[in-house]
Amino acid sequence: MEINLISDTITKPSNEMLQYMFKAVVGDDVYKQDPTVIELEAKVAAMFGMEAGLFFPSGTMANQAAIKLHTQPGEQLIADKYAHVYHYEGGGVSFNSGVSCCLLDGNRGMITAEQVAGAINDPEFYHSPLTSLVCVENTTNKGGGACYELEDLQRIKQVCDANNLKFHMDGARIWNALVAKKQDPKAFGKLFDTISVCLSKGLGAPIGSVLLADKATIHRALRVRKILGGGMRQVGYLAAAGIYALDNNIERLAEDHRRAKEIADVLKKLSWVASVEPVETNILIFSLVPNCNEKNLIEVLKQKNISISSMGHGKLRIVTHLDYREVMHTYVLETLQKLV
Amino acid sequence: MEINLISDTITKPSNEMLQYMFKAVVGDDVYKQDPTVIELEAKVAAMFGMEAGLFFPSGTMANQAAIKLHTQPGEQLIADKYAHVYHYEGGGVSFNSGVSCCLLDGNRGMITAEQVAGAINDPEFYHSPLTSLVCVENTTNKGGGACYELEDLQRIKQVCDANNLKFHMDGARIWNALVAKKQDPKAFGKLFDTISVCLSKGLGAPIGSVLLADKATIHRALRVRKILGGGMRQVGYLAAAGIYALDNNIERLAEDHRRAKEIADVLKKLSWVASVEPVETNILIFSLVPNCNEKNLIEVLKQKNISISSMGHGKLRIVTHLDYREVMHTYVLETLQKLV
Amino acid sequence: MEINLISDTITKPSNEMLQYMFKAVVGDDVYKQDPTVIELEAKVAAMFGMEAGLFFPSGTMANQAAIKLHTQPGEQLIADKYAHVYHYEGGGVSFNSGVSCCLLDGNRGMITAEQVAGAINDPEFYHSPLTSLVCVENTTNKGGGACYELEDLQRIKQVCDANNLKFHMDGARIWNALVAKKQDPKAFGKLFDTISVCLSKGLGAPIGSVLLADKATIHRALRVRKILGGGMRQVGYLAAAGIYALDNNIERLAEDHRRAKEIADVLKKLSWVASVEPVETNILIFSLVPNCNEKNLIEVLKQKNISISSMGHGKLRIVTHLDYREVMHTYVLETLQKLV
Amino acid sequence: MEINLISDTITKPSNEMLQYMFKAVVGDDVYKQDPTVIELEAKVAAMFGMEAGLFFPSGTMANQAAIKLHTQPGEQLIADKYAHVYHYEGGGVSFNSGVSCCLLDGNRGMITAEQVAGAINDPEFYHSPLTSLVCVENTTNKGGGACYELEDLQRIKQVCDANNLKFHMDGARIWNALVAKKQDPKAFGKLFDTISVCLSKGLGAPIGSVLLADKATIHRALRVRKILGGGMRQVGYLAAAGIYALDNNIERLAEDHRRAKEIADVLKKLSWVASVEPVETNILIFSLVPNCNEKNLIEVLKQKNISISSMGHGKLRIVTHLDYREVMHTYVLETLQKLV
Repeated sequence: MEINLISDTITKPSNEMLQYMFKAVVGDDVYKQDPTVIELEAKVAAMFGMEAGLFFPSGTMANQAAIKLHTQPGEQLIADKYAHVYHYEGGGVSFNSGVSCCLLDGNRGMITAEQVAGAINDPEFYHSPLTSLVCVENTTNKGGGACYELEDLQRIKQVCDANNLKFHMDGARIWNALVAKKQDPKAFGKLFDTISVCLSKGLGAPIGSVLLADKATIHRALRVRKILGGGMRQVGYLAAAGIYALDNNIERLAEDHRRAKEIADVLKKLSWVASVEPVETNILIFSLVPNCNEKNLIEVLKQKNISISSMGHGKLRIVTHLDYREVMHTYVLETLQKLV
Repeated sequence: MEINLISDTITKPSNEMLQYMFKAVVGDDVYKQDPTVIELEAKVAAMFGMEAGLFFPSGTMANQAAIKLHTQPGEQLIADKYAHVYHYEGGGVSFNSGVSCCLLDGNRGMITAEQVAGAINDPEFYHSPLTSLVCVENTTNKGGGACYELEDLQRIKQVCDANNLKFHMDGARIWNALVAKKQDPKAFGKLFDTISVCLSKGLGAPIGSVLLADKATIHRALRVRKILGGGMRQVGYLAAAGIYALDNNIERLAEDHRRAKEIADVLKKLSWVASVEPVETNILIFSLVPNCNEKNLIEVLKQKNISISSMGHGKLRIVTHLDYREVMHTYVLETLQKLV
Repeated sequence: MEINLISDTITKPSNEMLQYMFKAVVGDDVYKQDPTVIELEAKVAAMFGMEAGLFFPSGTMANQAAIKLHTQPGEQLIADKYAHVYHYEGGGVSFNSGVSCCLLDGNRGMITAEQVAGAINDPEFYHSPLTSLVCVENTTNKGGGACYELEDLQRIKQVCDANNLKFHMDGARIWNALVAKKQDPKAFGKLFDTISVCLSKGLGAPIGSVLLADKATIHRALRVRKILGGGMRQVGYLAAAGIYALDNNIERLAEDHRRAKEIADVLKKLSWVASVEPVETNILIFSLVPNCNEKNLIEVLKQKNISISSMGHGKLRIVTHLDYREVMHTYVLETLQKLV
Repeated sequence: MEINLISDTITKPSNEMLQYMFKAVVGDDVYKQDPTVIELEAKVAAMFGMEAGLFFPSGTMANQAAIKLHTQPGEQLIADKYAHVYHYEGGGVSFNSGVSCCLLDGNRGMITAEQVAGAINDPEFYHSPLTSLVCVENTTNKGGGACYELEDLQRIKQVCDANNLKFHMDGARIWNALVAKKQDPKAFGKLFDTISVCLSKGLGAPIGSVLLADKATIHRALRVRKILGGGMRQVGYLAAAGIYALDNNIERLAEDHRRAKEIADVLKKLSWVASVEPVETNILIFSLVPNCNEKNLIEVLKQKNISISSMGHGKLRIVTHLDYREVMHTYVLETLQKLV
């Protein structure tokens, strides 16, 4: 029994999902003739009360396309210092859009309206980049799965409106936030110019993200997707996995959250754990006491068939997911408690 | 019976291919842990005698990544005036790589070593872009499926070597060329710095291209793929389709070629056809006599359940493929002959 | 007596111009506090009946900024196959703007409304770049100093309006056109979204171009100039040279044109000259008979203190200018006639 | 008597400098035929013991070109959080080079080798941008004119060498550092791959910066300068101002530094001044006590003909320079002391 707690991206389709994929009616999506893709795009858009959606081969491409759609080269976006778009998309913000990032010192990856307001460059002072976009990540990846209160996002939205800024949400793990906070996706649809939502990770589909926006923006997004090379042919097989996941795998995220919290509760009591960050969803970040070595811990756990990962700077990360089942969980809790 | 002769991109996986796809063993390809993707990449590389391969979600992205790998912004590539990278990749050459195209007036999409030599900018004359790359397309799409003689490519390679230029082949339909000319893919592997080969189109896989190069270049390509958003998760399902296609669907391309030639033979005899371009593979381009209207013809054929497409400027295009079967072919030949 | 007919860019300020330059009242133009620069910008704008102007360190930067102001990366501009922006601005169209060029086969560097109309990509066909800008050069450099009829530009403008395209004029030698055709600059001001005009070349100022447009565009141009590094400090010395040139050196361009035509008349009668292109302004392009070598001719003339340049492909170029005076002209005519 | 302490960029050439400019022998620098430019470039290169130099119309363009010369799009540079290249070059790092900035929390604009070492991304982890360049600014502008110890730069250089990073110095005010620290410019020439030095600001030339590097890099820089539109014609007039400034205006920077320190000494004793940052060169940053308003102070001083500027966040800045003479200084010191 191999237990992988490194990331929720490693989940594999269940047999039921595979059956559903296998039966998909497909077409050439480059010509927008794949009915299953169209169904998925409409389904996600409807969930968030937004006008239209577009399938992308990755969350990175969906985010990068959104940034491109809202900016001109030379402009600047505002995000948290932990932002995935800055750290883990290969430098794409500058590469694809010629845009720089103004990074804010947020709380577990979450920024406030006040911080945003203070970071906007004077649009008349042309020596500094023109600020044109705010990106938030929800839940935060590097911030440990923290999720925003709706009110905090509404306040940022007000700052955006007052300063002519676009507002994008990187919803790589938005489903976890919706479940953890019992929020209505339509409330998010009202706030953002674009939202990227991921179908792999927690939901368990093998590939794919959907970018949501109004119709005119999605029309332009088709061009950007084509330029980046994201136009694919018979995509319906992948879209079917997404439809299945939306119909079957959202509510069960609560189990991932419960398990993450239970692991945290165990860790907090251990002598070799210095601190455990608050757990809101399926990501758990903790650090070791000074004389404990993180590489050592990773190695010891690996020998017990449990894989976890280091975040550098003395932090370790555990991520629960669809393929981390109760029997594994019991074993992990026991193993951690026994560890010296 | 709907007969689609618009493009070979519309083919759908057969039941056998689907069975093979859904039995695939998969992993997270972003971490390069998907064994089926690794198998596919190695398989294609071995066919062409090249060191390594990398899976891409589209031929466009594979080409765009290759151009990026060989150039710096401000440089120039040389290609035929019909080149797919210039016309049908959304302006990506400039968008993704900041590179301009020097387009040559080739023959049915194919350029010569002499033309290339004459188009290279003096590298010391810094007012003009530095020429750094030559791209050929084989077979040519807009050129009507024409394929290069190996000797002509070898001569271009000599010009590249003498002038410090990289050499890329857009092999969107390379399988058609190999079958039509009975060429050895390893001969191509020796000539090019990068080759993109497509698994959909003639081969019938739903999605995917592979970029081939030496190991160091493919290592760098991982970064470029990530930046463009082409890193995907459980890709093995798609890779499996590619493996199945390579094992089963190459030789049968000869049938597509035969059928295209048979349609050409019929068209040549028709009074309303002005000219038919030479047919080498599965693409057939023809034009109508002055008083015949191409939109009209498309409409008439559509009413008879046959879809073909216009290329503009009085030209029409027919593309044969895996899902265009003998019974359809018989019907098409009969229908064309009866048309007035 | 060294006679340089290679380019009109080599002219040096006269003593009178130098006196005027060094009496200039200057300020810090980065803060828009240099009164002489402001005077020059207003003066040129008024001549063309446009709202505003902005000083640039080079014609290349003025053109590149204009292209950036009118486009988004991935889009396409239409220009003649000889266009300076494509050939001699270092690949800047792609580097600075991520834009590709659709080059037309014009007449001596001049394109027609019909050609433009035929080159516009269908804006709904997102596989091809979006056409968003037309650039004309007047006079044409590589086209041999040819100048547009106003009516031909008006027809192109109609195509631009009908297709939502911006319209830019590279006026590196617009003064030559205005003098040769006795045209009113205000007629051009009505047609174009942006015009770049050069103060060096024929006018004899040492450095500088002015970009003309409406106020909102020039406001945005300040940002682009800053990003490209074209914001300079006490620019008034250079601007003063421009003011002097506009007041004193425009009408005398007619002499450069007369001399170019007289050289052409001599060349036409020479046995070793194969053909001489029509001369409209100060640029003269001619070619040699087959058994005459162009490098040889350049060398022979150089030994007689006359420098001319090769354009490659068997063509030679002669450019007359402010520092090419009558005594030199007499000598050149005599020397050419005696040459065997 | 108007006293401008806003910036040292507002200085105007003295009569002696103007006379020197006026007598310059010039040529077409686009063809590298301007002897005065060549003299200046060689002179500055020799001072720093570097192989070659290239004149640029602005420090911004010299820095931007350097960044482009050392990077590929998608890569990342490391700099202090106050870096001019990030804040005041219009977003050019991303626009011109497609590069992102990793900003460090330095001390008054200066970073340490340890900070740099900790900020380098793992080159094998391709999800994050590849770190390829470190930029330091010396003296620091937003950091209040602080200057590096040579040893601290040498330590950073070691980190660069160990990690295959290029090393660039933005020497907009390097002359101030050399004078203040009594450092040898050749010691800097040994450390950096490129150095940009400014001839306006403290030195008092109206326009221009020089980029220094080895010959091969400067050869490539010609291309980058051309693409950005920085190739100008008869530049010798500007270069002459630079030569004059180097010969006459370096040592006198010590006076600017003395005056800045004397103003600081006065400010420190004032009840309405909360704090004054250490003064090392010609820039002085101070802040007011809570109940004092900075806009108010600026206005009061303006009415007494003294202009100073706000840096936002409660900070004010005073910059001394060539055109701030002793009589003005006496008046400023008196005025400040009397102010309530």
